[in-house]
Amino acid sequence: MKLLSFRRPDGTPSFGRVDGDRVVDLARDGGPTSLRAALAAGMAFDGTGPVHALADVVLLPVIPDPAKILCVGHNYETHRQETGRAKVEHPSIFTRFADTLVADGQPIIRPRVSGDLDYEAELAIVIGRGGRAISEVDALDHVAGYACFNDASVRDWQWHTTQFAPGKNFPGTGAFGPYLVTPDEAGDLSDVRVVSRLNGTVMQDQPVRDMIFPVARIIAYVSAFTPLSPGDVIATGTPGGVGAKRQPPVWMQPGDRIEIDIGRIGTLTNFIAHEETLA
Amino acid sequence: MKLLSFRRPDGTPSFGRVDGDRVVDLARDGGPTSLRAALAAGMAFDGTGPVHALADVVLLPVIPDPAKILCVGHNYETHRQETGRAKVEHPSIFTRFADTLVADGQPIIRPRVSGDLDYEAELAIVIGRGGRAISEVDALDHVAGYACFNDASVRDWQWHTTQFAPGKNFPGTGAFGPYLVTPDEAGDLSDVRVVSRLNGTVMQDQPVRDMIFPVARIIAYVSAFTPLSPGDVIATGTPGGVGAKRQPPVWMQPGDRIEIDIGRIGTLTNFIAHEETLA
Repeated sequence: MKLLSFRRPDGTPSFGRVDGDRVVDLARDGGPTSLRAALAAGMAFDGTGPVHALADVVLLPVIPDPAKILCVGHNYETHRQETGRAKVEHPSIFTRFADTLVADGQPIIRPRVSGDLDYEAELAIVIGRGGRAISEVDALDHVAGYACFNDASVRDWQWHTTQFAPGKNFPGTGAFGPYLVTPDEAGDLSDVRVVSRLNGTVMQDQPVRDMIFPVARIIAYVSAFTPLSPGDVIATGTPGGVGAKRQPPVWMQPGDRIEIDIGRIGTLTNFIAHEETLA
Repeated sequence: MKLLSFRRPDGTPSFGRVDGDRVVDLARDGGPTSLRAALAAGMAFDGTGPVHALADVVLLPVIPDPAKILCVGHNYETHRQETGRAKVEHPSIFTRFADTLVADGQPIIRPRVSGDLDYEAELAIVIGRGGRAISEVDALDHVAGYACFNDASVRDWQWHTTQFAPGKNFPGTGAFGPYLVTPDEAGDLSDVRVVSRLNGTVMQDQPVRDMIFPVARIIAYVSAFTPLSPGDVIATGTPGGVGAKRQPPVWMQPGDRIEIDIGRIGTLTNFIAHEETLA
């Protein structure tokens, strides 16, 4: 099952289930009006409702308003090596604010203050059932599904100090979409490849199995220090091949097309816009 | 003027103005019901309302539900030196989730998974008027007031990797209170000392003027990468003298009393509780 958040043709936000080239609108009076609220309510998502053509709705970030967005750094050996980071026994965790998110098809914003805008193809976990101190054995029971994430990074600001927050929290830099794929439909992701393409050229391409800390381990670690709630998002880290570590570095430029392609999880496509040119 | 968030004797949350040993309750039907909402509405806080004895209300964190909590690391030279961090040209920024906050008088929670719980006395800024890319010259116009903050840290988890988030996001570790002091009442804070006392012994004691990056510079830097909103909180960093860097290290133990005392900004007092002993 594929679930998504969108604006109806009349502009109101809603959520629903993908059915071919249509979307079944599952928000209604007296029920949850957002995908996050529907996850919290334990909705089965198999109901009926008004149908829109996918072409007639505007996608929103998979979860437009997560309470928490956690990101894992250096979770593929190729990326750890290219960044020269030490091997660590625990996942490296930083956070994003929800106002950094953009949907499939929306622009990723290159800020006024920097030209060092980089891509990071990542598999995102969306939490379905919340919890604290979740065991690794139980962790996958807490997953509502998976989506593509582009953890786009303003590198000079990320590296101002040891702490990544500034470079990871510019508005319009966290692309998240197009939809959430439930675990039954996602199946075994081990061999699925996490790919980024910049203007059609493959920049990153590595299977999910190459993660240093796999999904269950990440959920266990994160929930050991912070309670997780339905709709929370964990971006699981990016493979080697980022623009910053190329010679010369490759930065995303206004007009560029960046795609994150994760096989059955879908393809997330965004164009780069310069902040100056936006309203 | 001193503003606070509290639970009324009947248990409902509210906010108000301190008047000696009483609090003037400023939440009412049709108006803002939280201090954050009141700041967003531009309330003058000089109105009248029901009066409670301060002794009859239970304090809440100054802002119980900030949209963003940003923290500055290594912002006093003494602390930078004791931690062996490099000199940097920009403030080091990490984040907390709002569910880490506790009020004056509530327990700070030592988690099950670690005994390395440390104190950090800090001056917190509360944002009154939001904005993005705020200039240093205008920055103080965006401040609603100041409060004491104890950025209590689970050091082993903070140091699992380069990123501090895990050690800064355990529930019950961000003490924030007792109240917000408006800038007119706070006055010039340069000579006001940021002090921590553990069971009555002074552990940190340094004037606000010793900050490497002062308040206006921090607001300008932070708002350059993330939009600020009314009620957002910035903890401005801690002086030297943390427990982790003493020989032998000093960790806060269940039953310990930790006070953050910042002169006119007030005194924040918490006892340490072990997570095991809480409901």
